[in-house]
Amino acid sequence: MKVAIFFGSKSDTDVMKGAANCLREFGVEFKAYILSAHRVPEKLSETLKAAEDNGCEVVIAGAGLAAHLPGVIASKTTMPVIGVPIKGAVEGLDALFSIVQMPKSIPVATVGINNSYNAGMLAVQMLAIKDAALREKLNQFRTDMKTKFIEENGQGVDL
Amino acid sequence: MKVAIFFGSKSDTDVMKGAANCLREFGVEFKAYILSAHRVPEKLSETLKAAEDNGCEVVIAGAGLAAHLPGVIASKTTMPVIGVPIKGAVEGLDALFSIVQMPKSIPVATVGINNSYNAGMLAVQMLAIKDAALREKLNQFRTDMKTKFIEENGQGVDL
Amino acid sequence: MKVAIFFGSKSDTDVMKGAANCLREFGVEFKAYILSAHRVPEKLSETLKAAEDNGCEVVIAGAGLAAHLPGVIASKTTMPVIGVPIKGAVEGLDALFSIVQMPKSIPVATVGINNSYNAGMLAVQMLAIKDAALREKLNQFRTDMKTKFIEENGQGVDL
Amino acid sequence: MKVAIFFGSKSDTDVMKGAANCLREFGVEFKAYILSAHRVPEKLSETLKAAEDNGCEVVIAGAGLAAHLPGVIASKTTMPVIGVPIKGAVEGLDALFSIVQMPKSIPVATVGINNSYNAGMLAVQMLAIKDAALREKLNQFRTDMKTKFIEENGQGVDL
Amino acid sequence: MKVAIFFGSKSDTDVMKGAANCLREFGVEFKAYILSAHRVPEKLSETLKAAEDNGCEVVIAGAGLAAHLPGVIASKTTMPVIGVPIKGAVEGLDALFSIVQMPKSIPVATVGINNSYNAGMLAVQMLAIKDAALREKLNQFRTDMKTKFIEENGQGVDL
Amino acid sequence: MKVAIFFGSKSDTDVMKGAANCLREFGVEFKAYILSAHRVPEKLSETLKAAEDNGCEVVIAGAGLAAHLPGVIASKTTMPVIGVPIKGAVEGLDALFSIVQMPKSIPVATVGINNSYNAGMLAVQMLAIKDAALREKLNQFRTDMKTKFIEENGQGVDL
Amino acid sequence: MKVAIFFGSKSDTDVMKGAANCLREFGVEFKAYILSAHRVPEKLSETLKAAEDNGCEVVIAGAGLAAHLPGVIASKTTMPVIGVPIKGAVEGLDALFSIVQMPKSIPVATVGINNSYNAGMLAVQMLAIKDAALREKLNQFRTDMKTKFIEENGQGVDL
Amino acid sequence: MKVAIFFGSKSDTDVMKGAANCLREFGVEFKAYILSAHRVPEKLSETLKAAEDNGCEVVIAGAGLAAHLPGVIASKTTMPVIGVPIKGAVEGLDALFSIVQMPKSIPVATVGINNSYNAGMLAVQMLAIKDAALREKLNQFRTDMKTKFIEENGQGVDL
Repeated sequence: MKVAIFFGSKSDTDVMKGAANCLREFGVEFKAYILSAHRVPEKLSETLKAAEDNGCEVVIAGAGLAAHLPGVIASKTTMPVIGVPIKGAVEGLDALFSIVQMPKSIPVATVGINNSYNAGMLAVQMLAIKDAALREKLNQFRTDMKTKFIEENGQGVDL
Repeated sequence: MKVAIFFGSKSDTDVMKGAANCLREFGVEFKAYILSAHRVPEKLSETLKAAEDNGCEVVIAGAGLAAHLPGVIASKTTMPVIGVPIKGAVEGLDALFSIVQMPKSIPVATVGINNSYNAGMLAVQMLAIKDAALREKLNQFRTDMKTKFIEENGQGVDL
Repeated sequence: MKVAIFFGSKSDTDVMKGAANCLREFGVEFKAYILSAHRVPEKLSETLKAAEDNGCEVVIAGAGLAAHLPGVIASKTTMPVIGVPIKGAVEGLDALFSIVQMPKSIPVATVGINNSYNAGMLAVQMLAIKDAALREKLNQFRTDMKTKFIEENGQGVDL
Repeated sequence: MKVAIFFGSKSDTDVMKGAANCLREFGVEFKAYILSAHRVPEKLSETLKAAEDNGCEVVIAGAGLAAHLPGVIASKTTMPVIGVPIKGAVEGLDALFSIVQMPKSIPVATVGINNSYNAGMLAVQMLAIKDAALREKLNQFRTDMKTKFIEENGQGVDL
Repeated sequence: MKVAIFFGSKSDTDVMKGAANCLREFGVEFKAYILSAHRVPEKLSETLKAAEDNGCEVVIAGAGLAAHLPGVIASKTTMPVIGVPIKGAVEGLDALFSIVQMPKSIPVATVGINNSYNAGMLAVQMLAIKDAALREKLNQFRTDMKTKFIEENGQGVDL
Repeated sequence: MKVAIFFGSKSDTDVMKGAANCLREFGVEFKAYILSAHRVPEKLSETLKAAEDNGCEVVIAGAGLAAHLPGVIASKTTMPVIGVPIKGAVEGLDALFSIVQMPKSIPVATVGINNSYNAGMLAVQMLAIKDAALREKLNQFRTDMKTKFIEENGQGVDL
Repeated sequence: MKVAIFFGSKSDTDVMKGAANCLREFGVEFKAYILSAHRVPEKLSETLKAAEDNGCEVVIAGAGLAAHLPGVIASKTTMPVIGVPIKGAVEGLDALFSIVQMPKSIPVATVGINNSYNAGMLAVQMLAIKDAALREKLNQFRTDMKTKFIEENGQGVDL
Repeated sequence: MKVAIFFGSKSDTDVMKGAANCLREFGVEFKAYILSAHRVPEKLSETLKAAEDNGCEVVIAGAGLAAHLPGVIASKTTMPVIGVPIKGAVEGLDALFSIVQMPKSIPVATVGINNSYNAGMLAVQMLAIKDAALREKLNQFRTDMKTKFIEENGQGVDL
């Protein structure tokens, strides 16, 4: 696998599907795990290690509230970690701050609140650094996106 | 020692002195450590374990930004953990949210932004549950606080 | 009883049940009262005093809006007071600020917005300071939590 | 005296001078007290009672952080209570919310953050309900304010 | 009439009923008007003048969004003006700020978001300054409130 | 004159100079007035009327706190009104909300906090609708801006 | 056409209808386009150019989240650009900030969150600078608005 | 070069130095450019294209206020773009929201407010996906960081 997706609770499944959908669109192999930074820290370390041993190169982690999971993972690996703030309270600002405001040297690449599709896209972009075919797919995706957008909307709309 | 104080960076020292001052006022033994949830996770676990073995019964942890330290400690012990949000950005709201919004089952007892003195006081109150002499000191402290407050301010002030 | 739970209005009952549920799980005796810092201040003092006389060692108080109840209780006792901010307006930030930002010397141990279960857990952790059996239960609870979490989620999930 | 001014700490003196200055401008008698809802609750009740016995008809109360003082006073009297949120943290939003978001039946008449002059003005407006001479002064104040404003600024300004 | 209630749109009617209900409980005469600071400024001035001529002594004004109505009224009268922030967007913070943050000399006595009942109560408290019978009713109201609260909740609750 | 600039207090002068500087750069005539929506409402109406009679076609209004001035002006004219939120408290959010959240039919064209230069630029853009020479100047300004930007920064920088 | 309306997604259609409705009320010709600053930047430039060639004098642009569309359009034209923040997350504050906080020299005339009707009105006000008949319509609209408001609400309301 | 760093104004230089410092520590080649999404959009496209042709694989972009630069770059390339929100107003929340809340398919990997060092680190982590030597350096960096942290802080501190 190329990407490991982690999130902390079954209730986050719907939000996190966006990441999986994006990775499938680009044919990128991934595995997903429900794990918790606080409830099963050892299992998290172990699963992360196993993922790395199996070829994983990028991690996506989603969490809500005091969303420590992405940051804790980032402290246990030097792979790039992409964080998805999940809206649970205070409009998702608690999760956003808990993920994006990481201390010096341990970054988390944060995407928009509940926007896990973009986490998938960012993972693809990172993997494309060494995978020319994936880069090609990304460029084609952009071209297709434009074409489709213009087909659908290009003549103006009634309002 | 009875209380272990943890914080993540030398720059937090001034803020965290309040906790130490309060504990000294009540004659409660403590030790303080600069440790980081992200930079030295194993050392943190080990120090926490050693503290518990040395009689520690309450933990105080201060952190700023995406302030994971108190929550990570809370996941590693069943001692009560008191969290001090330290103001570093966005008026300290990032630290406050990262500390107080912990998931179900792993609480952090959060005090006000930069208010580490109150973390010390809360530790004393917890320890007083089994230490009648400390309870007595707390009650005396309250009485003295009132007396002093009234002496200083009791006759009204010029404005 | 060991824990007294206070809240200000019948409409807070559902939120506050979490604290009661947690205490029941750990076999900790508690009593619950609907009382108001502003509407019946004398009754509050009296009930608090009676609770203390009946063996109460920790207080949990939930409130919304300008949530003064936890802080007012904290000013009337030296027992540790755990505050639960209840979401009523502005995403619960009014209650959170009114509870956590207490002045020097009168702390309230604040948990997450609407997260009264964690208030119960924190109370158990405090009581475990002098109750080895309770400490044992807490440790067992953590172990069980991990085991159950891994059983349910340990093999990865479809996404 | 007609107005009692309360605030919680010597450090609030500068902010609260605005209220005193306004009352002096209108020749309204007042007394000022540094008292705390949490530190000396009984002294607060007693002073408030004495003020009422001495002819006090309006209360002004300033506080910062988890600013309970105005609300606690409002629960102890049926006089109108004017609250001044004092900026101490999070841009004064903690004090604003703690003062303005009072529960049903116990209002606090809240003015702007640090704007104690307006608390004085509001007290004068309330007292003018039964004091025709004061009403006259208020109307004259408005006329003078307009005249002065127009004299100073009426011809346009260089920019 | 003693109190004039103003608000800006039929859609605010439900929120503003609380003020009317409170005034009716205390037997205080009032009239209510839908008027707008921006849409019919002259009509507003005229209605306000007529209210004052008919014995009005306190104004209540509710508004949402950029809630100028209370402040504009306050600039046209020296009667005390009570402002009710009505939640329309950004959790009601726009209305709260637009009402409470008035400039020096033109205060608005602000109550909680959507809490128009408290605006009514504050009006009663102001009118009681010169109406001993109303003061008596207020004191009786508090006593009744306490009695009823204790009857309903005094024995503790199941949780 | 083409543009009238209003603001509420001498202390706003520095912030509002940006608008004047921009208008001078484009050779657009303007006059500036310190006037207040609340303190001198009649003078404001009168000055606004005189400005319109003297050829004014766009209004710029700056205000802080509960910043009613732009909205009140917008209710008195059908000229476009540009609002400048001036930072006085809560990071300028009170002024921003009080200006931008205007009710249906009475818009204020809001620019960034303290960014009065952009208010000037927006006024120029509006006037250019009927003034081809001004449009030309605007286009030239953009071209010059690009040229200058590239000259200064076009070769990359040391970091 | 006189006004071009742009927005980024079919899901914004309902919010943006307000602008169209306002322009139709005033008989102002417009065309509407779904285009995206990020997905089809070249198509956006081209459409904008064509609009300008067809007589367009004002642009309205609505966007949510990191709402770049209005600002990107403003960088490509010297026509005045009116921005409508569309609520998608964090109560619409992300869109408001992304639109209103533009850098020096590239303003966007921002209206209230979701308030596209006011964007239409602002466009009419700008066009009225050179169109006396439109100015007349605006003045008549205001008169009618007042008349209707007073007819509906002028006699006071039951509350 | 491997990394291109863009920012919008000379005044951002100090903040952005962190990214450069981190890249130098890891021996990663970079070039830095002051360019603006709004002021010189064509020059931006051209520079970005040239960077890609010269081997660039990751982009870092810093911006303040309505911080469009990172998002606009992300729309012009399929390389991963790392965004640094720079604090200019409202505590940097405007820049954070403008960068992180990107629409579906065009992500920006956002780091903490003013934390450009972490942007550099994230770039290194991304490049390490295909550069085993860099991965080795990253792992060594972590080991060194731990060793140094423990040497400095491992024995506890006086407080």
